[in-house]
Amino acid sequence: MALFTKEEALEYHKAPRCGKVEVIPVKPCGSQKDLSLAYSPGVAEACKEIHANPETAALYTNRSNLVGVITDGTAVLGLGNIGPLAAKPVMEGKGVLFKTFADIDVFDINLDIKDADQFIAAVKAMEPTFGGINLEDIKAPECFYIEETLKREMDIPVFHDDQHGTAVISGAAIINACEITNRDIDKLKVVVVGAGAAGIACSKFYVEMGVKRENIFMFDSRGLIHTGREGLNKYKAEFAQDKDYGTLAEVLKGADCFLGLSVKDLLTKEMVASMADNPIIFAMANPDPEIPYPDAKEASPDCIMGTGRSDFPNQINNVSGFPYIFRGALDTCATEINEEMKIAAAHALAKLAKEPVPQSICEAYGVDSLEFGTDYVIPKPLDPRILEWVVPEVAKAAIETGVARLTIDDFDAYKKELTARLEASHNRVDAFVKSYISK
Amino acid sequence: MALFTKEEALEYHKAPRCGKVEVIPVKPCGSQKDLSLAYSPGVAEACKEIHANPETAALYTNRSNLVGVITDGTAVLGLGNIGPLAAKPVMEGKGVLFKTFADIDVFDINLDIKDADQFIAAVKAMEPTFGGINLEDIKAPECFYIEETLKREMDIPVFHDDQHGTAVISGAAIINACEITNRDIDKLKVVVVGAGAAGIACSKFYVEMGVKRENIFMFDSRGLIHTGREGLNKYKAEFAQDKDYGTLAEVLKGADCFLGLSVKDLLTKEMVASMADNPIIFAMANPDPEIPYPDAKEASPDCIMGTGRSDFPNQINNVSGFPYIFRGALDTCATEINEEMKIAAAHALAKLAKEPVPQSICEAYGVDSLEFGTDYVIPKPLDPRILEWVVPEVAKAAIETGVARLTIDDFDAYKKELTARLEASHNRVDAFVKSYISK
Repeated sequence: MALFTKEEALEYHKAPRCGKVEVIPVKPCGSQKDLSLAYSPGVAEACKEIHANPETAALYTNRSNLVGVITDGTAVLGLGNIGPLAAKPVMEGKGVLFKTFADIDVFDINLDIKDADQFIAAVKAMEPTFGGINLEDIKAPECFYIEETLKREMDIPVFHDDQHGTAVISGAAIINACEITNRDIDKLKVVVVGAGAAGIACSKFYVEMGVKRENIFMFDSRGLIHTGREGLNKYKAEFAQDKDYGTLAEVLKGADCFLGLSVKDLLTKEMVASMADNPIIFAMANPDPEIPYPDAKEASPDCIMGTGRSDFPNQINNVSGFPYIFRGALDTCATEINEEMKIAAAHALAKLAKEPVPQSICEAYGVDSLEFGTDYVIPKPLDPRILEWVVPEVAKAAIETGVARLTIDDFDAYKKELTARLEASHNRVDAFVKSYISK
Repeated sequence: MALFTKEEALEYHKAPRCGKVEVIPVKPCGSQKDLSLAYSPGVAEACKEIHANPETAALYTNRSNLVGVITDGTAVLGLGNIGPLAAKPVMEGKGVLFKTFADIDVFDINLDIKDADQFIAAVKAMEPTFGGINLEDIKAPECFYIEETLKREMDIPVFHDDQHGTAVISGAAIINACEITNRDIDKLKVVVVGAGAAGIACSKFYVEMGVKRENIFMFDSRGLIHTGREGLNKYKAEFAQDKDYGTLAEVLKGADCFLGLSVKDLLTKEMVASMADNPIIFAMANPDPEIPYPDAKEASPDCIMGTGRSDFPNQINNVSGFPYIFRGALDTCATEINEEMKIAAAHALAKLAKEPVPQSICEAYGVDSLEFGTDYVIPKPLDPRILEWVVPEVAKAAIETGVARLTIDDFDAYKKELTARLEASHNRVDAFVKSYISK
């Protein structure tokens, strides 16, 4: 089942060059003239232009295509608080994904700061460096305060992917799961297990999509969140039920939707069997879901089951979201990523799932065909069509909500340009990587 | 005289891609398997190794080859306090130089922070991100406090290039100028004009090299620095003369060495003529020196004249220093760049100037020949031999002074590896840049 061994994973990170990214000049720098353009005295012309007109920084530096992936290392993957140094491979990897899926450059910044306000100050000070900030693997509840504050105080997009990436992708899946199972989203009873960054953000996003707040039952490690509990932080309190409706097993009875953002093996076959007909089960704990895929299917053959895994249907993976959301934000020079842009991304993803799937994508996943339905509610993460489907919708939403500083006149031309740009980037990266491998 | 027009300089920065650097994956990332190694779940193996043994971050991330070029934009080139956004082209350019001369990757970090302690906190917090910190274009006297504090509090090299780069290169030139003019360094009367980052750091470095502190006469914009002046900061006070010896013109009479780190046209022909025979004049204001080269030569045909310019003899350019000093520090995983490492670099540069110069280098500078003497006291910045001459000496000094965490067993093999590594890097970069240009 594992695609690789531990040794293979370590070797991949180590050789032929340590780590996963390299910073490469994109301009000629072989001659004295080149260097005098790249640095003093030629560079002074660019500095003076930017000093006179700060917006030209988008032209004369890489800032307009540069995202800071920033962490404190407190909630890394399923590994927990391993600190910023041990988090660095993940952040570099995030940069690889940004580049591969949307030609966005990333500096990963791993900050050794424990205090939220100091963390905020350090990130905020980097505004001249970046065109956008992707917060990553910061534990709850600090992540909410950090993101809220930075969004308010910075003039560039700030996006905590662990929150909103998961919300957008699972949101798209829920839209389609409701359609397939013939449910109205405003009548959905949703049980959310895990009240961390993703659990809270998903729940908020579902409410915006139409789920009734009182129909969301959120569990943390101590049980159902309800108003009778003491010491709830304000983020959890927002989803507190009016009383204690019982254990997870009790609350799940008759529920339409299970959303797992917690730990493996928390959901039993009996619980699944007790849910409504055609239940929607998104068991997103990584790498092992809250219930193994075969067990869920055994307990409820008609369920719509999604996990974070690529080896089962309905993979719910943030990579279907953040590269495209940032691409749309950067291309319109948006000052933020707002709710409308995220909802636009979710709907675009949901729509794409209903399109016929090219054979090449089926082959990449080793299946004969993919058709909209129980086992295919959301596009595959490696589906190259996501770029053209999602980015323009995000860009449109940015323009329509007034957060864009650039507009796009011709969206058809923009779609083509997006694809051409990414293909060219892939060709360059492939050739570059081969220049190592062929050694 | 100008190598390029303003339009050309702006175009270079703008097209075909905005800015001068790009962040590229160095590992395959085309398949699902690749991506599951680069990111979750494969990346967790690297995280766990680093968490268990932090030193393995040097293997599994790019940190061991990654330098943060960090500025607050308060003293950018000759442009002054233009702020961190307008400084970004310079910082990207610095990254290009690090890569071109020593295959070192750079993230440029432009911080919008005015308070020195907050700046220190932000840089210090980035320790997990970087293998070294190059502070850049921070005004004096804050730069001294910032660097001192960070050096003390961080376990990776911290180097303010505006200070020490200039000190090392001009120090190398002084060693050779003394030899050529048959002077003893401990008898040198040095007049330093400019008491900013470079002026102070150069003076300190010369004292370490053997110049007597009482023989250094330092001027700032208000005149000679002496104990009778009020409000001197402690960095200037270190070089205060015991009384006011008069104006620059008066103090320069009979002086052996003029060191200009100030502004153009400050030194007159009369002043030069009043100096000792065979004076040493390093007029390093950029882009225009304190006295034009032809004027200095007219006033004193036997002078040794150096400037920051590539179009006259004896170019004193930091690029002959920082890439190699950091290369030696990174390759030995040094915890700091200490005085011994800088002195080793200066002596290595000084020695190389006495070697026969290959025809290819003369051609690159459009001269028939280069021979150790008045018009060639220091290697040309584009001399590719600097790598093999300077880096091993810096590495040796790091090892001998006990700041290295890695040792080098075979220095001959190391020299060859250095050259091979840089050549391979150039080939990769050239091919990458061409993939843009050929479009």
